[in-house]
Amino acid sequence: MDAALRQSKALCPFLKKTSPATLRSLSTSSPARQASPGGGSMSNLQTIARRCPVMGKALAVQTAKTANVGLGGVAAIGAIRAFTGKASKNNSGKAGLHTTRPRDAKIEDTLFNRETRVPLPQHTKPPAAHQHNARKFDYEGFYNAELDKKHKDKSYRYFNNINRLVKEFPRAHMSSKTEKVTVWCSNDYLGMGRNPQVLKAMHNTLDEYGAGAGGTRNISGHNQHAVSLEATLAKLHAKDAALVFTSCYVANDATLATLGSKLPDCVILSDSLNHASMIQGIRHSGAKKVVFKHNDLADLEAKLAALPAEVPKIIAFESVYSMCGSIGPIEGICDLADKYGAITFLDEVHAVGMYGPHGAGVAEHLDYEAHVNGRPRGTVMDRIDIITGTLGKAYGCVGGYIAGSAKMVDAIRSLAPGFIFTTSLPPATMKGAETAIEYQMEYQGDRRLQQLHTRAVKDSLDELDIPVMHNPSHIIPLLVGNAEKAKAASDLLLEKHDIYVQSINYPTVPVGQERLRITPTPGHTREFREHLVSALDSVWTELGLKRTSEWASQGGFIGVGEQGAKQPEPLWTDQQLGVDKVVKEMKAGGPVGVMEALLEREREEMARAVSAAA
Amino acid sequence: MDAALRQSKALCPFLKKTSPATLRSLSTSSPARQASPGGGSMSNLQTIARRCPVMGKALAVQTAKTANVGLGGVAAIGAIRAFTGKASKNNSGKAGLHTTRPRDAKIEDTLFNRETRVPLPQHTKPPAAHQHNARKFDYEGFYNAELDKKHKDKSYRYFNNINRLVKEFPRAHMSSKTEKVTVWCSNDYLGMGRNPQVLKAMHNTLDEYGAGAGGTRNISGHNQHAVSLEATLAKLHAKDAALVFTSCYVANDATLATLGSKLPDCVILSDSLNHASMIQGIRHSGAKKVVFKHNDLADLEAKLAALPAEVPKIIAFESVYSMCGSIGPIEGICDLADKYGAITFLDEVHAVGMYGPHGAGVAEHLDYEAHVNGRPRGTVMDRIDIITGTLGKAYGCVGGYIAGSAKMVDAIRSLAPGFIFTTSLPPATMKGAETAIEYQMEYQGDRRLQQLHTRAVKDSLDELDIPVMHNPSHIIPLLVGNAEKAKAASDLLLEKHDIYVQSINYPTVPVGQERLRITPTPGHTREFREHLVSALDSVWTELGLKRTSEWASQGGFIGVGEQGAKQPEPLWTDQQLGVDKVVKEMKAGGPVGVMEALLEREREEMARAVSAAA
Repeated sequence: MDAALRQSKALCPFLKKTSPATLRSLSTSSPARQASPGGGSMSNLQTIARRCPVMGKALAVQTAKTANVGLGGVAAIGAIRAFTGKASKNNSGKAGLHTTRPRDAKIEDTLFNRETRVPLPQHTKPPAAHQHNARKFDYEGFYNAELDKKHKDKSYRYFNNINRLVKEFPRAHMSSKTEKVTVWCSNDYLGMGRNPQVLKAMHNTLDEYGAGAGGTRNISGHNQHAVSLEATLAKLHAKDAALVFTSCYVANDATLATLGSKLPDCVILSDSLNHASMIQGIRHSGAKKVVFKHNDLADLEAKLAALPAEVPKIIAFESVYSMCGSIGPIEGICDLADKYGAITFLDEVHAVGMYGPHGAGVAEHLDYEAHVNGRPRGTVMDRIDIITGTLGKAYGCVGGYIAGSAKMVDAIRSLAPGFIFTTSLPPATMKGAETAIEYQMEYQGDRRLQQLHTRAVKDSLDELDIPVMHNPSHIIPLLVGNAEKAKAASDLLLEKHDIYVQSINYPTVPVGQERLRITPTPGHTREFREHLVSALDSVWTELGLKRTSEWASQGGFIGVGEQGAKQPEPLWTDQQLGVDKVVKEMKAGGPVGVMEALLEREREEMARAVSAAA
Repeated sequence: MDAALRQSKALCPFLKKTSPATLRSLSTSSPARQASPGGGSMSNLQTIARRCPVMGKALAVQTAKTANVGLGGVAAIGAIRAFTGKASKNNSGKAGLHTTRPRDAKIEDTLFNRETRVPLPQHTKPPAAHQHNARKFDYEGFYNAELDKKHKDKSYRYFNNINRLVKEFPRAHMSSKTEKVTVWCSNDYLGMGRNPQVLKAMHNTLDEYGAGAGGTRNISGHNQHAVSLEATLAKLHAKDAALVFTSCYVANDATLATLGSKLPDCVILSDSLNHASMIQGIRHSGAKKVVFKHNDLADLEAKLAALPAEVPKIIAFESVYSMCGSIGPIEGICDLADKYGAITFLDEVHAVGMYGPHGAGVAEHLDYEAHVNGRPRGTVMDRIDIITGTLGKAYGCVGGYIAGSAKMVDAIRSLAPGFIFTTSLPPATMKGAETAIEYQMEYQGDRRLQQLHTRAVKDSLDELDIPVMHNPSHIIPLLVGNAEKAKAASDLLLEKHDIYVQSINYPTVPVGQERLRITPTPGHTREFREHLVSALDSVWTELGLKRTSEWASQGGFIGVGEQGAKQPEPLWTDQQLGVDKVVKEMKAGGPVGVMEALLEREREEMARAVSAAA
């Protein structure tokens, strides 16, 4: 450390408390920036320097004065680099930043041949005029380079054209109406998207109130459907109030961004596997973010204990983590929140409709009997401050919401731009969603049958050594561990077996953890399940994918084949599903397997309920 | 400036280029923070210091070490305050930040009496346990204080319960089915929400494909409806490709955030009246933002000229600014974009369906004849790089989109979290929107009639000296200039005259510019218009609101009563509306006023078209 740095660190409040190691790590170029088609690398420090309260202003002032935004920044960063003893080889003042031409920014156009899966419609068009000017930024080259990266790392996505059929659930047709497949990866977990009561309510509302809401909630887009849906959601979660958004992505983003930015000095503690919508909301809030290890109460407590008691804190987490099916330790988190003065923000997106006697989610399920008996006070669900959920998965429609105290909900209603400045959901959508929620509050058959189908599929796959990532929920992730192979498995299932299971790759899961994610529904009866299991067995063989025992021989990986790892108990107990009862009946002499007998009985019950509802 | 500051400024790259005045202004407390219920004021500098690349790290490290997040920050800010020669009276180290109790954080619960307009459902519930702990942050008190602020500045919003009736358009019922009002502020500008073809397409799709999409676009939520809708949108705007989002709020936010963060060193130039969704997108991008004066090409050019040619730049602006009805100088902005190597991002949200021979928006309207003749190449619309629009206003449904080059659209599809991680729009919504777009591509009657009704209302209000903020578009803003009075006018219209016109207050418009915003539709025939105009005249008198001549006597304000200001020509010309022709016919001896004769003819044509369509 030379004299200049010592002196500067002594005087400057920004540098004073920072170690040379930290400054050095901040000066390192990030890989994403290095590959930038604009040429030249950008250090992390350089990238974020623009956000510095003082330097940002200085750069802006200088830009206006000298018509050269790059120079000041580069000079300044150069100075910091000198302090940290590391100079970037690609940055030599002004010239280094933007004057090099894009390198290797060409990819083949990717019009996929199979008619059902084209990336995007492509028309011919002459290049825009500005591309001919050498001094101007090459936007099309930049887009191309970004896409090229996705092709190279195999994370480029080809969408499958899946048209789910009301009358043939869980079947769908592809772009051709005659080409049919069985859908095994929809989040319409309970088939409510084709529930006759839901559809009838939507038809009636459409006829009476039309296609759209016609405005934001404040300007002509508030109506009896919004009032009623929000009251139903509040009732479902036994909260004071609820607020509906266009999606739960927006609900999470808007709520966390608003609370995190408004609560003074707010700190948000975020589970490491949280959904993108929460991550975005936290980022957009500008609040301090502390990530704790997935479902790790000890780590969370250590991080809470390190914060001052009086600082507002939000613990943001999920009940069911959709890509691995793990379940958050909700009660433990409530205890920690109480102990350290935090509020809890629980995303029940993959759990509403699916757990609890009324389908309110995992938090409700944890006090099953209390909620059956209509005593929500003092339960885990009651202790959660903010619950968020979706109308687009188990409830079969679209939209999202938050539920909580009247003041909190009113504050978000009054302050969140993502709520205020957007058109309301259509009346028919709100009515359909409300009907679905009420149906699932009354009727448990769908979610119990879904759980039984889940158990049956997991059991069959285990028998065939296919690597199920075991968990207590309704999600069946199968580990593949490679983006290209996961896509190949998905393609083979579709093309050879008429089964649609989307491969899950980055950024939805980390690189190296690619998987197939299977979601049974009440409609996936025995024939569908047997077909799926044998198809998976065939695909695993044909592509030489690792079986559970092979993962085990390598020491196991993310819950598959790990030595001594206890298989998690399902959240829905045998007793709650009525398995106990059937076992007893079977002992009295039935010829069929327990699970199948139970499923047969559930199927009959469901058929009765559906025909009664129609 | 003392020696320490001089030395520090000489050495530190962050302080070197910043004037004492700038540092001083950054040290000023912001009003929002001063009113924080957490007690103690926060300076802007203190607030943003956490985002400083170096100090932020240092604060985080110190927090973890000392379990006291406040101390480091306060000490550091104190140091900067000493430099700038200004100390905040409320900050005396650690104690100042969080230990004071909330002050005056009580408001009355606001259960509005009229059944139709309650803020939110309120249930009784005991206060949460954590409120009893003195050292913990008082969350409910904080929400309360935020709401209190909104009550005090009259920006607290009471939603009106408006149920727009398909069979009585433009009428709606309030919470009681018998209490009916005429809606004069919906963004369902053309009544497509009750268009028989749209509804029929939605019913059919609902029956065949169900209520919801069942997944994200990547995981089972991509289907023929998305493919077809995006192809139709690309065709509408004569672009390579389009991409549908859950709303245009999300489309704007996600697209600008993605481009701004990915394009290296991107600068986004933003019109000062841009919609909240664009402002959020720009903020979320972290890119440098340069705001130019509303519709001011000279200011925009000065700001473009100050930036290096090779830096990527996005000019983000709107065609129709919804709250004042002004129209962006699209062609001039395209010229500047070409000259300075920028790309154009045009929000046509309030214009799609409404302008141009096919309803593609203002950009299409500017080359009316070329588009009538199917020659889009080289037109203004063709020159725009990114067009964004909504399916929720003139198209009567819900959802938003972007349209542009295939590579740009594919890059956003591949990179934007707001697109990737959210459930697709329902098939029936997409089918309904597509039907509406196609209908409006073929049929001009609705938007022409809407324009004629707009002209008729503006003319009548001018005659009565009611302060129309004149503009070239279909929006009729009436200046009130006070939040309380604007709300009173809206309430009086509703309660006494059964007319619903929402008052527009902060944050949708700046404080002091509160207004009523009237949006005629093709359904607002003469009786409705006469009723509206006389009701407004009565309300203006009853509440003593300023008339145009009164604004004029005070020198005028934002387009009302300004001396020598030329009234802007409507974008739809007399010739395009067929007014010329009727004038000629009238000269041959008709007894009725020109406008009414024309309206009568248009009404008859529309009735024919609607019945043919049904």
